[in-house]
Amino acid sequence: MLRHPFTRSVRPNRVYAKLKLAGFATSAIRNAVANRAVVFTANGNPAEVLRVQSYDPPSSPAPDSVQVRFRLSPINPSDINVVQGVYPATPMKMQLGGEDVHVGGNEGLAEVVEVGSEVQGLKKGDWVISAKPQAGTWSSFRTLRAEDVIKLPEGRLSEVNAATITASTVNPPTAYNMLHEFVHLKEGDWVLQNGANSAVGQAVIQIAARKGIKTINFVRNRPDLDHLMNQLAQLGATHVFTYDALSDKSLAKHVKQWTSESPIRLMLNCVSGPDTTAMTRLLGDNAHIVSYGAMSKKPLSLPTSLFIFKNLCAQGFWQSRWYQQHSRQERENLMKTLADFKLKEPEHEILDLSTESSDEAATQRLRDVLVKMEEGFGKKVLLRLG
Amino acid sequence: MLRHPFTRSVRPNRVYAKLKLAGFATSAIRNAVANRAVVFTANGNPAEVLRVQSYDPPSSPAPDSVQVRFRLSPINPSDINVVQGVYPATPMKMQLGGEDVHVGGNEGLAEVVEVGSEVQGLKKGDWVISAKPQAGTWSSFRTLRAEDVIKLPEGRLSEVNAATITASTVNPPTAYNMLHEFVHLKEGDWVLQNGANSAVGQAVIQIAARKGIKTINFVRNRPDLDHLMNQLAQLGATHVFTYDALSDKSLAKHVKQWTSESPIRLMLNCVSGPDTTAMTRLLGDNAHIVSYGAMSKKPLSLPTSLFIFKNLCAQGFWQSRWYQQHSRQERENLMKTLADFKLKEPEHEILDLSTESSDEAATQRLRDVLVKMEEGFGKKVLLRLG
Repeated sequence: MLRHPFTRSVRPNRVYAKLKLAGFATSAIRNAVANRAVVFTANGNPAEVLRVQSYDPPSSPAPDSVQVRFRLSPINPSDINVVQGVYPATPMKMQLGGEDVHVGGNEGLAEVVEVGSEVQGLKKGDWVISAKPQAGTWSSFRTLRAEDVIKLPEGRLSEVNAATITASTVNPPTAYNMLHEFVHLKEGDWVLQNGANSAVGQAVIQIAARKGIKTINFVRNRPDLDHLMNQLAQLGATHVFTYDALSDKSLAKHVKQWTSESPIRLMLNCVSGPDTTAMTRLLGDNAHIVSYGAMSKKPLSLPTSLFIFKNLCAQGFWQSRWYQQHSRQERENLMKTLADFKLKEPEHEILDLSTESSDEAATQRLRDVLVKMEEGFGKKVLLRLG
Repeated sequence: MLRHPFTRSVRPNRVYAKLKLAGFATSAIRNAVANRAVVFTANGNPAEVLRVQSYDPPSSPAPDSVQVRFRLSPINPSDINVVQGVYPATPMKMQLGGEDVHVGGNEGLAEVVEVGSEVQGLKKGDWVISAKPQAGTWSSFRTLRAEDVIKLPEGRLSEVNAATITASTVNPPTAYNMLHEFVHLKEGDWVLQNGANSAVGQAVIQIAARKGIKTINFVRNRPDLDHLMNQLAQLGATHVFTYDALSDKSLAKHVKQWTSESPIRLMLNCVSGPDTTAMTRLLGDNAHIVSYGAMSKKPLSLPTSLFIFKNLCAQGFWQSRWYQQHSRQERENLMKTLADFKLKEPEHEILDLSTESSDEAATQRLRDVLVKMEEGFGKKVLLRLG
């Protein structure tokens, strides 16, 4: 029997009874369902190396710290890359059952559950995010220093919106900065992008549309293509194509007509590989290709003549570097700017592992979802652990 | 019997006698040896489509023009690309024997042989170059508007030096600008380059050395490798390797040690393909790859992670664009700056086609040399036609 990965639920008191029978210490039993982390000890295929593990709740926070509970934590492509060991960031370490493990997760919406005696400006119930990257957000309870958390505006946000947009220190900022830091775009200009249905891609479409910038978007062919195309069009996409369209020579002619007043000078790339190479034929002179991902796992391969004769410039964007290079004030300004865009949250599914009766069952369900994610085409997955 | 392509000579009066016997018109005979052009009617493999063709000398120049004789005209890689039809420049057109043909050649040292009645500042015997690209320099006599020629300093230059360095509007300027327009380099900094034995590569080595900038140079393996390595070392190369060295993992370690104070931020590329990809492992963060050629005829293929996490920037340089974007004053300043470097002329061979008895024989000799050039490893070829 196939289990639907997102809708199962187990009655908590049954879980409690089971655990009690299995001889768990009371403190462990009390928190077994609510207190879990997604961890790994060695890099590898996430569907093989990630596991769900219960742990004792942290003790009361130090005077300068707060205890938080993560409510929803996205599984971003870069989180997967961290687990694979191909992303230059060190995941959080913790001791679990006498073993050093890494806890996954870079982003997440957390709620303050206990406040250290000297902490000011934060209270129980506040929604916060971690100001530090690789905070190990795939966990339930955690203790964080108060200076490392950022408080979200009260009472105006849905949980999903907060977790995917307002609390997202990666995707919407990446979209905004790529549209602003490389080419001076004005109303009526054009942007070309692939992976247009990614969280970044959807933010690009929306931010561009609000500024009167037109987008030509590429996505993979898929069973529910019409649905996706409609969805992107509703976000403000000017044109949406599958990569198959690149083999049709009339496309370049059409693009040339559309953009004759303003040849394309910015292309955003999270795919690389041959389709991305083919897309560069649509660019005008003096264009910038800005890469922020490589979902094809293939290199970015470009005819040298594009660089020499069309003055192409290929660069990369990494939001982590942006944060390093900008002040706290600049970061806060960016977040405020993004909040004003009121971006639509991406299509998502909540993977609630708090309802699983055992770590083994939770691990299995997580891995099923990771296999599905590996195949692509899925919605954004938001983890709920506690 | 194998003919050595560069040292044959035929006594001119013997040629004259032969042509007379063959029934050529007197004017054609008088100039048959001295008045030839290397032409093509369709793009293609230079060794197949280029031919040498005699033509009548131009009549006396108009009042605003001068008649010049090209003394030595280099065959540059970009000239080959123009013939192949893969270079975005339109070669000179002329009518020869009632047929429209293209005349090859972008650079060349010319001597003024006749001055139009209203021309000032130029006299018979002056050495000049064309200020306009694609001047059809693979020809002997030509008429040029006085405003389109640039006079070289008198009496200080050898013919070869003038043709390859002082009169070169492409190679030394390309080297100089690539070292100055992308990364601010100071004494002790490092530059990585491939195709280091090209005319540009040799100029890069010399200009960098004069400024205290160190170079790591890559060349192809070849029979006379020691000779080439010594030659580049004498020009000021800090290190010279063949591409084979890239498969030795200790190289990256050595480079890291050498450059630990100043990780490499500039790489100059005229090759592309897998060896060039491998070279990028030697780069530091925030580096620029500047491409000015693609001798491998393969694309420039780079791991997307280099762009994202190491902030690599890949660009191109085209001296023609630089000229378009800079004033006449800036161009002249550049030429003066380059003259002060007193660059050593590249190893060269003079291909003297003026000594060939017939256009057919001259064409055959030219094609033999072009085949040799296609194989690489040859010296710079300088054409002498009249």
